[in-house]
Amino acid sequence: MYLPLLFIFPLLFISSQGSVQDFCVGDLSLPNGPAGYSCKKSSKVTENDFVYHGLAIAGNTTNIIKAAVTPAFDAQFPGVNGLGISIARLDLAVGGVIPFHTHPGASEILVVIQGTIYAGFISSFDNVVYLKTLNKGDVMVFPQGLLHFQVNPSKIPAIAFASFGSSNPGLQITDFAFFKNDLPTELLAETSFLDVAQIKKLKGVLGGTN
Amino acid sequence: MYLPLLFIFPLLFISSQGSVQDFCVGDLSLPNGPAGYSCKKSSKVTENDFVYHGLAIAGNTTNIIKAAVTPAFDAQFPGVNGLGISIARLDLAVGGVIPFHTHPGASEILVVIQGTIYAGFISSFDNVVYLKTLNKGDVMVFPQGLLHFQVNPSKIPAIAFASFGSSNPGLQITDFAFFKNDLPTELLAETSFLDVAQIKKLKGVLGGTN
Amino acid sequence: MYLPLLFIFPLLFISSQGSVQDFCVGDLSLPNGPAGYSCKKSSKVTENDFVYHGLAIAGNTTNIIKAAVTPAFDAQFPGVNGLGISIARLDLAVGGVIPFHTHPGASEILVVIQGTIYAGFISSFDNVVYLKTLNKGDVMVFPQGLLHFQVNPSKIPAIAFASFGSSNPGLQITDFAFFKNDLPTELLAETSFLDVAQIKKLKGVLGGTN
Amino acid sequence: MYLPLLFIFPLLFISSQGSVQDFCVGDLSLPNGPAGYSCKKSSKVTENDFVYHGLAIAGNTTNIIKAAVTPAFDAQFPGVNGLGISIARLDLAVGGVIPFHTHPGASEILVVIQGTIYAGFISSFDNVVYLKTLNKGDVMVFPQGLLHFQVNPSKIPAIAFASFGSSNPGLQITDFAFFKNDLPTELLAETSFLDVAQIKKLKGVLGGTN
Amino acid sequence: MYLPLLFIFPLLFISSQGSVQDFCVGDLSLPNGPAGYSCKKSSKVTENDFVYHGLAIAGNTTNIIKAAVTPAFDAQFPGVNGLGISIARLDLAVGGVIPFHTHPGASEILVVIQGTIYAGFISSFDNVVYLKTLNKGDVMVFPQGLLHFQVNPSKIPAIAFASFGSSNPGLQITDFAFFKNDLPTELLAETSFLDVAQIKKLKGVLGGTN
Amino acid sequence: MYLPLLFIFPLLFISSQGSVQDFCVGDLSLPNGPAGYSCKKSSKVTENDFVYHGLAIAGNTTNIIKAAVTPAFDAQFPGVNGLGISIARLDLAVGGVIPFHTHPGASEILVVIQGTIYAGFISSFDNVVYLKTLNKGDVMVFPQGLLHFQVNPSKIPAIAFASFGSSNPGLQITDFAFFKNDLPTELLAETSFLDVAQIKKLKGVLGGTN
Repeated sequence: MYLPLLFIFPLLFISSQGSVQDFCVGDLSLPNGPAGYSCKKSSKVTENDFVYHGLAIAGNTTNIIKAAVTPAFDAQFPGVNGLGISIARLDLAVGGVIPFHTHPGASEILVVIQGTIYAGFISSFDNVVYLKTLNKGDVMVFPQGLLHFQVNPSKIPAIAFASFGSSNPGLQITDFAFFKNDLPTELLAETSFLDVAQIKKLKGVLGGTN
Repeated sequence: MYLPLLFIFPLLFISSQGSVQDFCVGDLSLPNGPAGYSCKKSSKVTENDFVYHGLAIAGNTTNIIKAAVTPAFDAQFPGVNGLGISIARLDLAVGGVIPFHTHPGASEILVVIQGTIYAGFISSFDNVVYLKTLNKGDVMVFPQGLLHFQVNPSKIPAIAFASFGSSNPGLQITDFAFFKNDLPTELLAETSFLDVAQIKKLKGVLGGTN
Repeated sequence: MYLPLLFIFPLLFISSQGSVQDFCVGDLSLPNGPAGYSCKKSSKVTENDFVYHGLAIAGNTTNIIKAAVTPAFDAQFPGVNGLGISIARLDLAVGGVIPFHTHPGASEILVVIQGTIYAGFISSFDNVVYLKTLNKGDVMVFPQGLLHFQVNPSKIPAIAFASFGSSNPGLQITDFAFFKNDLPTELLAETSFLDVAQIKKLKGVLGGTN
Repeated sequence: MYLPLLFIFPLLFISSQGSVQDFCVGDLSLPNGPAGYSCKKSSKVTENDFVYHGLAIAGNTTNIIKAAVTPAFDAQFPGVNGLGISIARLDLAVGGVIPFHTHPGASEILVVIQGTIYAGFISSFDNVVYLKTLNKGDVMVFPQGLLHFQVNPSKIPAIAFASFGSSNPGLQITDFAFFKNDLPTELLAETSFLDVAQIKKLKGVLGGTN
Repeated sequence: MYLPLLFIFPLLFISSQGSVQDFCVGDLSLPNGPAGYSCKKSSKVTENDFVYHGLAIAGNTTNIIKAAVTPAFDAQFPGVNGLGISIARLDLAVGGVIPFHTHPGASEILVVIQGTIYAGFISSFDNVVYLKTLNKGDVMVFPQGLLHFQVNPSKIPAIAFASFGSSNPGLQITDFAFFKNDLPTELLAETSFLDVAQIKKLKGVLGGTN
Repeated sequence: MYLPLLFIFPLLFISSQGSVQDFCVGDLSLPNGPAGYSCKKSSKVTENDFVYHGLAIAGNTTNIIKAAVTPAFDAQFPGVNGLGISIARLDLAVGGVIPFHTHPGASEILVVIQGTIYAGFISSFDNVVYLKTLNKGDVMVFPQGLLHFQVNPSKIPAIAFASFGSSNPGLQITDFAFFKNDLPTELLAETSFLDVAQIKKLKGVLGGTN
């Protein structure tokens, strides 16, 4: 039976106190916790909190790796706080390299937007290597926490977007972890099996000490 | 003290039975469970399981909505099974519309690759509407389960990628749920407050019965 | 060997600092986060924090839908904060209707306490409709995020309790999302395929503008 | 701009292989896993899978505790499998007692449907006791894993529904765990500090041996 | 092609605001939430936050149970906050007993370091008892929320470490919950089936009242 | 009011079909899924499924790293399947080194049982190094997915147990990932910034090719 509606009908659902929480835009000025940042008051949330323009501009690839990663994680894009998702832009100039790295907290999907990317990851079981050349529109998934890399093997710049199943996936670049801090050279030699000369060379390049 | 390594050293880590599970490529022929598909045997997994080419081709937009959604969820791209992430390609021709829909199981990040997209979602609290025009490179997040839409307001075709924090986010298009099945017209009128004539018209368009 | 206990025995477990956290009664005056409200200090928690009387009274059904939903979510009943569960009372007068809606964050179990309820939900896959008449004591489950409704098809008022697998399941009523706000009529027509006249009529009924 | 729809429009969303998984009705004949039972094939799922009639009938309270718990967990009601929610019916005759027990896997919300229930739980921190008398329509929450009980202190039978934030919350009744099995009496005396005579008496009542 | 690195290369990854959150050392002075304590500012975190010395010293077993549990949960060891793991030390003198207890929020793995431990747990299904004698180096797992105990059946003191899959597993000792508070004797008799005399005796031993 | 119990009382809780699932001992012969292995039938589960003896024996440290890791993950110890916890034994002879590695799926707590261990991890934010010397009974936590190492700096062998907040934490040793497979030398040079000579040397030591 069809129900004619002729008059305004009153509120069906009355939330007597507090608000229903559809989202939790991060307020970076409040304390954060294990699940993310505290929520911005909903009365102050606007449509701008859900949009990020920072990935529209190419990252600066005039560096020695000829590449740039521009993140839109919760710290840059507080609208994703608590929603279990984030994104980053990858720019790889000709010869560009995103060196071996891991995301401690999430798996990644990469989609190539321009150019060609040669990518790979290494399984922790038997150290199996999975390598693929990805063209425009191709998608590759990198399971959580595993070492992976991306390089531009072609003659034109490459662009890709990497999505993550966490608003705070983390990014640990092995070279930076090893060579871009004050980790003592002898200790690193002992725990990485790298030669002292190799370590000193890369510490020099990356600004590490000790 | 630096440790010289002159000889092959034996396996440090011996997994005596079974395999360490870095990933769980879905085997669609085996039973699935609440957490996803059963895993393909790791001996049969190759690099091709982690790559999907289906998003490289534009979806067919020669339809009345002038738009197409091409998913790479676990059912199409079993490599994402269990990894908590998936992706889809959106093609919107001039005048294209992805009508109001929800993803029951995940939040979404949209990144515009070409053209302009006008998008919005509606909060469940006070029915607040959040609307934005997104240009190339802009990113917008749609919190889990909320009604949202995307349209192409410009004079050129638009392309976007939508990433999800689930390998199986689901997609429920309100029009399809209401008008593209055998849900009785009178019942739908009663539960949606839509006029019978309106319902019959849209059932006619979408192929619904009753 | 049986151990006779003749004297007071000292504390086995000494928590040297802080408290073991069995629960986290929400303090609505403190910031909330993605996982819920901050916890009330345990020294201030009493038995009253774990009990809610607000569902003992029938909701007011003298409205055009002849129905009422009374929630005991974390905002109303802070004792459930962080415990992954909440409840609501449904009152449906004769002819009462809870129109199509979703809960973005949780699945629902409905148990009928009085009268008869005709309920249904729509799958996102192939838009399959699942409809059932529920009598007193019958239970129905509505999977997370899917469109569903409840109506009272009988000659006596119906009462039900709906439980949710989240302390903050959310509630998005499609009609309210479409017609009870300032979403522009032409945009809604474009993204819902509804006729402008239909939209204007329902905006009129529900108090929407634009 | 409003979009007139005059013709059938083709499938917007084509799932090329497999199905979108909105739910996972348990198939009790297939192996289960840590997340629940394997899913029944969606082609075999009907509306009856989402409804359970077993709670419509009062449990048999003609026993020494004058009470009954009738569960609708995943093993009885496979429709809830994987959805993170379940329900049970409690019948307490006059003088009825649901003795101290825990649910290892979920928090519980109790709603009283008929009569009066006196309920309580014990915190693990400082062993604080929270006790309340609940009348018809009152709701109480019992945090996950904590010891709690329900008794009927009134002159009329009581009925309640208990909802859980898991499709498989478990139920461990302390008396049954201690006295309704072959746990050796001396070992139980040593680990519970109960007198041997008390243990033998209750083993006799509950059918325990050793 | 090998890429020579001759010069310092600039930051690849620039986090423009906020910090990437690898960990969340608990700040016990700030409000906690359902997911744990608020995070200590990362600028104040040192290596000492990740180390705990409190388990290096034997617990005092000169008590009537001849045993001690020394926890390193988030309240004692804030470095584990949010990381889903914690640990405790068990000391059992000759004849020592950790009486029946549960951890409401986590499963436990026990590893014996010294001596012999006789341990067991009780399943909630059919009250099945699982008992084992554990020697040095043996490991036993106790599923979440189930009643279990540990005793020292040997002639030498025993030491073990218990690890938990939560930074706040909780600990509810059944005797303490029943007898070490003001739970009224008659109510406990009714809900535990224990004799009043037995209850009064154990309340006397453990310091309970009422 | 105390309730005398003179007669056997019937089953309070009747599970009409299927079993309540307290645990899910892995059956390695059945398919696994994203949440772990399928469950062994409960009728076949014995106490032996919950105990593992494999950590009672020292790992063989007569190798070039003078160390051994012996895991009790779900593949070795199926009793932990689905319980979110596992453990491993570390043996470090004098001069022993567990080289830099990550666990992609879990945080780790290390407790030193014998000797002294010098351990450290590197944060992904600013590449901060956290280093500590751990003595017997000391505990250190390593947050999920971050590079860490352990060495024995003392004159006596060291033993430790490492617990993980997952039944399948994974273990990726950076040296093995880089040098113990067929990852092409030039590609590794390009993506790790290591010299070709260094790579060839370590591939020789570890058995890598290409």
